[in-house]
Amino acid sequence: MNDPVASLPSSAVSNPTAALQRRVRVVMVETSHPGNVGSAARAMKTMGLGDLVLVAPKLPDALTHPNAVALASGAADVLARARVVTSLQEALADTSFAVAFTARRRELSHPIVALREAVGLALRQAMEVRDLPVALVFGNEAMCLSNEDVDRCQLSATIPSNPEYASLNVSQSVQVAAYEVMMQAGAFAVRDHPQRPAATAAEVEHFLRHLEAAAVDCGFLAPNSPKKFMTRMQRLFARARLEPEEVAIFRGLLAALQSSRPHDRPNSTLE
Amino acid sequence: MNDPVASLPSSAVSNPTAALQRRVRVVMVETSHPGNVGSAARAMKTMGLGDLVLVAPKLPDALTHPNAVALASGAADVLARARVVTSLQEALADTSFAVAFTARRRELSHPIVALREAVGLALRQAMEVRDLPVALVFGNEAMCLSNEDVDRCQLSATIPSNPEYASLNVSQSVQVAAYEVMMQAGAFAVRDHPQRPAATAAEVEHFLRHLEAAAVDCGFLAPNSPKKFMTRMQRLFARARLEPEEVAIFRGLLAALQSSRPHDRPNSTLE
Repeated sequence: MNDPVASLPSSAVSNPTAALQRRVRVVMVETSHPGNVGSAARAMKTMGLGDLVLVAPKLPDALTHPNAVALASGAADVLARARVVTSLQEALADTSFAVAFTARRRELSHPIVALREAVGLALRQAMEVRDLPVALVFGNEAMCLSNEDVDRCQLSATIPSNPEYASLNVSQSVQVAAYEVMMQAGAFAVRDHPQRPAATAAEVEHFLRHLEAAAVDCGFLAPNSPKKFMTRMQRLFARARLEPEEVAIFRGLLAALQSSRPHDRPNSTLE
Repeated sequence: MNDPVASLPSSAVSNPTAALQRRVRVVMVETSHPGNVGSAARAMKTMGLGDLVLVAPKLPDALTHPNAVALASGAADVLARARVVTSLQEALADTSFAVAFTARRRELSHPIVALREAVGLALRQAMEVRDLPVALVFGNEAMCLSNEDVDRCQLSATIPSNPEYASLNVSQSVQVAAYEVMMQAGAFAVRDHPQRPAATAAEVEHFLRHLEAAAVDCGFLAPNSPKKFMTRMQRLFARARLEPEEVAIFRGLLAALQSSRPHDRPNSTLE
């Protein structure tokens, strides 16, 4: 009721707001029905979003399928600009922050917050790190994401709903989330936010691979079973929202640790 | 971000919240596609709403049509309890407050507010007048309501959207509105609200008919062209949110005025 955004007419959506909305990516993982992709594109465009990425859709032509085009209605341009990639890692590579939407209660490795708070945190990140997108990640029609995919995100969120019938489909979830972005973007865009550098998901991923290699290399990890350790590391650094300099420091440290024990590494380039 | 509702988990939806949600009716006017009725029923149930009324749907069997049932998914109970009526007047007869949702900018006889504020005002009314429903009124697939139907409502509202592509369909509009009800109902239900009596739409309508009859009867209005005067009166009293006692006072006044001029009324029962 006292929300300053609430009374904004749509005509008040000025350029800073639109610029902030452009930094919000919608990622749909393993969507089964192209119609839902089209509906999601339409839902996004109604709320000023335009960056859509599909991860491993069931039908490879999901973006051009007749059902997708029909349900996108006037949002064919969103489909035309959308990309299909094979992994969530690829979809998030250039992002600094991702929110995993899930309908299931699950073992909590991350805090789980309500949509409104999650959108606020994502937009704050998008303001603080001006040149990198943030992502809202949705699972398939049953709103399921694998634990691995959830672990790639900084935050888990849920859309509050009837506990006895939490049956939002994926395009309606995108609609409600995009509405929250629209409602909050105006307020964020007019405030001053301190700028903060952030590592991209790809930079963090390279660091984690380096860490894994180093851990195996030094005998800390058995080469064939790094999974549990790496899952913990991934969760930890997803939460930490690393800055690029921190990534550089860690990698420098790893390199230094590796090169200081050449006797453990038969193929070392150091003599 | 600082909204106290935002961080409520869905498990916090306690009985007072559910009771408040039960007083929110969704009215769909002249819907063309039964599939949209089914989708709207599902959208309502996901957010804890259950009272659906259709006004003059294009297909008379819209509630039992296979497309409606298919898209309602697990919300068949909402369809089963829903009603079909022939006029908005009938759909609103027992309500104390109605919000007209419209996508078009129109000549403003009412103030037009954003969804979030409209839901707040409707829930406040639902708290203050505990035993009467409030209604959210949606037009057909193009989100069009006639001026007459808008004038029957206390408030006009719009769902903020992309000014260049404001293409929410009716079921997605219902989804977003129901989400706002869910988000705000918890906060309203835990606060103390002063109780205020309110006349129902039917009581106000009877009063307006009485007023019209009296105006014609006394020669103020030509019997065949009462339209402009009545439209103004309807708007005025829709805004005013009359209390039952006020309606009774007006009707008593009208009756007194009528009976004090028996010479104007050839069929008067007074001698």
